[in-house]
Amino acid sequence: LFEKLSAAARVNRSWLMVGLDPVLDKLPDGMRRDPSGALEFNRAIIAATSDLVIGYKPNFAFYEAMGPEGWHVLKKTRAAIPPDLFALGDAKRGDIGDTAEMYARAIFDVLGFDAATVSPYVGREGVQPFLDRRDRGSFVVCRTSNRENTFQDMDAGGEFLYERVAQAVVEWGDNVGLVVGATDVDALSRVRRIAPAVPILVPGVGAQGGGLGAAVRAAVDAEGGNALISATRSVTYASSGHDFADAARAVASGLRDEIRSAAAGAVDRVGSAVPHDG
Amino acid sequence: LFEKLSAAARVNRSWLMVGLDPVLDKLPDGMRRDPSGALEFNRAIIAATSDLVIGYKPNFAFYEAMGPEGWHVLKKTRAAIPPDLFALGDAKRGDIGDTAEMYARAIFDVLGFDAATVSPYVGREGVQPFLDRRDRGSFVVCRTSNRENTFQDMDAGGEFLYERVAQAVVEWGDNVGLVVGATDVDALSRVRRIAPAVPILVPGVGAQGGGLGAAVRAAVDAEGGNALISATRSVTYASSGHDFADAARAVASGLRDEIRSAAAGAVDRVGSAVPHDG
Repeated sequence: LFEKLSAAARVNRSWLMVGLDPVLDKLPDGMRRDPSGALEFNRAIIAATSDLVIGYKPNFAFYEAMGPEGWHVLKKTRAAIPPDLFALGDAKRGDIGDTAEMYARAIFDVLGFDAATVSPYVGREGVQPFLDRRDRGSFVVCRTSNRENTFQDMDAGGEFLYERVAQAVVEWGDNVGLVVGATDVDALSRVRRIAPAVPILVPGVGAQGGGLGAAVRAAVDAEGGNALISATRSVTYASSGHDFADAARAVASGLRDEIRSAAAGAVDRVGSAVPHDG
Repeated sequence: LFEKLSAAARVNRSWLMVGLDPVLDKLPDGMRRDPSGALEFNRAIIAATSDLVIGYKPNFAFYEAMGPEGWHVLKKTRAAIPPDLFALGDAKRGDIGDTAEMYARAIFDVLGFDAATVSPYVGREGVQPFLDRRDRGSFVVCRTSNRENTFQDMDAGGEFLYERVAQAVVEWGDNVGLVVGATDVDALSRVRRIAPAVPILVPGVGAQGGGLGAAVRAAVDAEGGNALISATRSVTYASSGHDFADAARAVASGLRDEIRSAAAGAVDRVGSAVPHDG
C-alpha cells in the first residue's frame, strides 16, 4: 500500500493532503446547501487542486451529519479523486475484531479508499482487519491536535501513552502509519524518533492553528518525506464567494511550496545527501 | 437522559439489550440477502422481543458494510424501536471537538438515537459534544471484551488505563455511562467500584463467551440495576430457519430471567434492603 503513497507523492511532487469536510451552511455563495451541493463543492475543490496534492482526506463525520444521503456523497467524492492520488478515509473507527472487519469492508470495499484512520483504544485486535488488507493502509490515531489530552498524555510507564501507541504500531506491519496533530511539535518529534520510517498523517495545519514549518520539520523522515500534511478549512474555505475554487488553488499551491521548502530544510539540517522531492 | 433509561427498564422489567447487527449472508432462510432483507429481519426481531428488553443496540459497522443503503436501513431500524424503549447507537465514534459535534448530530438528530457509544482516546474534548446534549446520553468505551488489550490494560500510574478512563468519566456529568465487556468480570467489578452510580453497558454475553451470571453480579449497582446486559448473536441467530423470531424470543426471555435473578442475587449479597426490578 505505501508504494501507492510514495507513488502519489511523486505525481505532483507534493505531500499536501486536502481534507474534504463540507458543512452545508458554509458552502460558497450560489451553491445549493444540500448533499448535492456538497458533492459539487468537493468536485470543484478536487478539480482546482488535483495537480498540487498527494491526495484527499474526507472526514466521515461531515457526511454522516447530512443524513443517509451523506454516504452517497462520500462514495461519489471518493470516486472523484483521481486514481493515482491517495484517497484516505478519515473515519477513526475502533471496535473489536469481527466488527472492525465490517468497518474495513465499508471503507475499503464499499467506498474504495486506499487507507483509513483507525482508533487504537481497542488494541491490535481492532486494527488487525485493516492490517490484513495488504493492498490498503491504516493510520492509527496517536496524538490528536486538541490541547487537553486526558488520556494520550497520561504517564504510562514513564512515557506518554501516545508514545506507547507509536511503539506498538511500529511492530504491527509495514502498511500502517500514525496520526499526530500539527499543534504539538514536541509530540511530532517524539513520534518520528520512535517510528523513523512510518508514514505520519499530520492534520491541524491552518485553521486549527498548527504552525506549518515547525510541524513539517518535526514530522518528515530522514529523506524529507513520509509526512502527509493535511489542511482542510484553510484550503476549502479560502473564499466563501464564487471564486472559492481559485482561492483554494492559491492556498494549496502556497502550502505545497511551504511544505516542500520546510522538508528540504529538515533534510539539510540532518545532513542527508540528496534532498527528496516528497 | 438516564431517566429515559430507568423508565425503559421499568417498561418490561428488563435490563436485557438486544444487539441488531445483521450480516447479509447470515440472514435466515427465505429472507432476501440484501439491505431490505436486513431491515425486515431487524423488524421481526424487534416485534418478537419488544416486551422482553430494555432496548436495542444496532452496531453501525454492520450497516456501513452494506453500502450507502445501509444508513437508510439503520435509520429505519431505529424508527422501528418502540419509543418507550432505549435506542442505543453503537458507533464508538471518537474525534476532536468540531468533528465529534458532527457525529453527535448524525447519531442523535439524523438517526434519532437516545444514546451513543463513544471512544475515549481523544479525551474529554471528543466526548463533550455528546455530553452537551442533555436530552441524550453517551457510553464511553472503557474495557472491551477482547482478551488482548494492548492499551486498556496498560499500567497508567499504578492502575490500568481503563480504570483511569472510568475515573475520568465519573467527573464528566450525569448523562454518561461506560462500556465494559462481559468477558472480564474483574474489570467489571473494578469499574463498578470506581463508578458506583454510572450505567454500564455490558456487551459480549453469549456468542463472545462471557458468563452471564458472574458478569451481571459484577456489573449491577447497589440496587441491582444500571447494567445494560447486551446479547446479539445468541438472540438474533438463535435459529437460522423460518422460526428465527420465535427462537429469538425464547432466548431473550431466558436471558431476561437469568439477568433478573443474578441481579437479585447480587443485591441480596450486598445486603441492600429492597430488590429492584431492574
